Amino acid sequence: MDKRTIVVALGGNALGNDIDEQKVAVAKTAGVIVDLAQQDLNIVITHGNGPQVGMIQTAMDNVVVRYKNYKQVPLPGSIAMSQGYIGIDLQNAIKYELLRRGIDGKVSTILSQIEIDKNDPAFQHPTKPIGRFMTKEEAEINEAHGIPCMEDAGRGYRIVVPSPMPKRVRELETVKTLLRAGHIVIACGGGGMPVVEEDGQLHGVNAVVDKDNVSCLLAQKLDADQLIILTAVEHAALNFRKENQVWLKDITVEEAKRYVAEGHFAPGSMLPKVEASIRFAESKPGRRSLITLLDKATDGLAGKTGTHIHI
Amino acid sequence: MDKRTIVVALGGNALGNDIDEQKVAVAKTAGVIVDLAQQDLNIVITHGNGPQVGMIQTAMDNVVVRYKNYKQVPLPGSIAMSQGYIGIDLQNAIKYELLRRGIDGKVSTILSQIEIDKNDPAFQHPTKPIGRFMTKEEAEINEAHGIPCMEDAGRGYRIVVPSPMPKRVRELETVKTLLRAGHIVIACGGGGMPVVEEDGQLHGVNAVVDKDNVSCLLAQKLDADQLIILTAVEHAALNFRKENQVWLKDITVEEAKRYVAEGHFAPGSMLPKVEASIRFAESKPGRRSLITLLDKATDGLAGKTGTHIHI
Repeated sequence: MDKRTIVVALGGNALGNDIDEQKVAVAKTAGVIVDLAQQDLNIVITHGNGPQVGMIQTAMDNVVVRYKNYKQVPLPGSIAMSQGYIGIDLQNAIKYELLRRGIDGKVSTILSQIEIDKNDPAFQHPTKPIGRFMTKEEAEINEAHGIPCMEDAGRGYRIVVPSPMPKRVRELETVKTLLRAGHIVIACGGGGMPVVEEDGQLHGVNAVVDKDNVSCLLAQKLDADQLIILTAVEHAALNFRKENQVWLKDITVEEAKRYVAEGHFAPGSMLPKVEASIRFAESKPGRRSLITLLDKATDGLAGKTGTHIHI
Repeated sequence: MDKRTIVVALGGNALGNDIDEQKVAVAKTAGVIVDLAQQDLNIVITHGNGPQVGMIQTAMDNVVVRYKNYKQVPLPGSIAMSQGYIGIDLQNAIKYELLRRGIDGKVSTILSQIEIDKNDPAFQHPTKPIGRFMTKEEAEINEAHGIPCMEDAGRGYRIVVPSPMPKRVRELETVKTLLRAGHIVIACGGGGMPVVEEDGQLHGVNAVVDKDNVSCLLAQKLDADQLIILTAVEHAALNFRKENQVWLKDITVEEAKRYVAEGHFAPGSMLPKVEASIRFAESKPGRRSLITLLDKATDGLAGKTGTHIHI
């Protein structure tokens, strides 16, 4: 792999809340990805799946209640489904955009699993809300059955699951093989299906792995040059949305760590992005992380905008 | 690819009706696949998804009715989901069986699409029942909305969709790349997500492509030596389940065509298997098709059992 390698992490929210929104979203995303592809880079795309896996898990929950002959599909199964549901539309949109620009490019989607540590402390403190919003009464019924719930940003109650750290991308070699063959590879959708290995056997786990953390790990293991985390703002900021807000443009890992310690970044939102960016940038000299808007990815890679984090 | 290449088609019914049954089924299947892998073959696995896509589509239908913020997921989206839902369990079971036998093998699952002809005559005559069983009244409501339904073998009414012929495996090059890299490849699950190409853009189609037909096309395009269709009987038969039943062991394409013409094989059951087997065997000298039980795949490949079809 002599070309530069980049890992691009897309937010699940940016992919739309239903199939129609998804078609629009992937078309826009495809334009950005092909802009990057035209710079002769190896590209791996990861993506979130919050709204999508929420829909799927809700659907699966309901069908079990309504039809006696179905059994509950555990969360990892729904994550695998979301990789299919999102991946194929994203793949087709990129392929079409390549074709539209006269490029004979290849795009593939790999079903992906992320190995985690079953002793990860996250299992003691579930923090990641998933699925549909419930009333307080519904949440209490779940809690009584040992299913943790929490109030989510004034929008209602949701089930929460642990969000352990990724330890190993199980399909790493597959991603490498396809990259070497010139493919744009879509992998680790929704942070990958979380699994633990016991006696060589992989078991799905009721958890969600943060897609920025997974992207960071994948970028390291691919020996990528650049991690690009695309989100809803052009830059990370100090004092975000306050009068004294300062956009961050080019910061060192040292600075980024200080800003994290000072509490500038919102948990579950900008914080995991900055933390993943720090980990990637400090993992080897020359590695750089970029946080910016989807539309600004190309300008960001050219150093014209975004928040750049480096040693 | 100097090794012999085989395409193995697994029935969706053999994969179980729920996640627990699926785990048991894939473990059994994995044993058979690894037996084959130990014969130093390139192996591509395709699989059906009847019960699984039925569950997913039913779940998606229901969630739309219950929650206003969700839109209908069309059938191709559910097929893509089923590729994730089934593929990951099948992949893990094979990987585990390889490990258990001390083999450092690679297994990957590729999200796959099948291009069809939008003018395929199948669109005039939907024949493939999908999804849950309905009452006559429910079926009539669907029919009134232009959604064709049919009575299915005394078990109730189901929606029927067209089953067009496959024209092109869109992810063929991905499958080849991974085969060359030594992977066992799972592809074209559920017959692949059916798409039509219009001005370079792929659009999902409300249809189901027969997985045996897809397996036949894939085997041809991979220049495979052997197509193995695994099903619920050890051999195809003349006068099946009648007093004068005769198991078929080794027949020529000529003979097979005559038996088809004589109506020996049940539509939607053995007929598509025999037809796909004929098409593969006659596509190039030396190509052979085999229809047999899952458990008998290895013996079948050794010529000891099953129904063999060749020029």
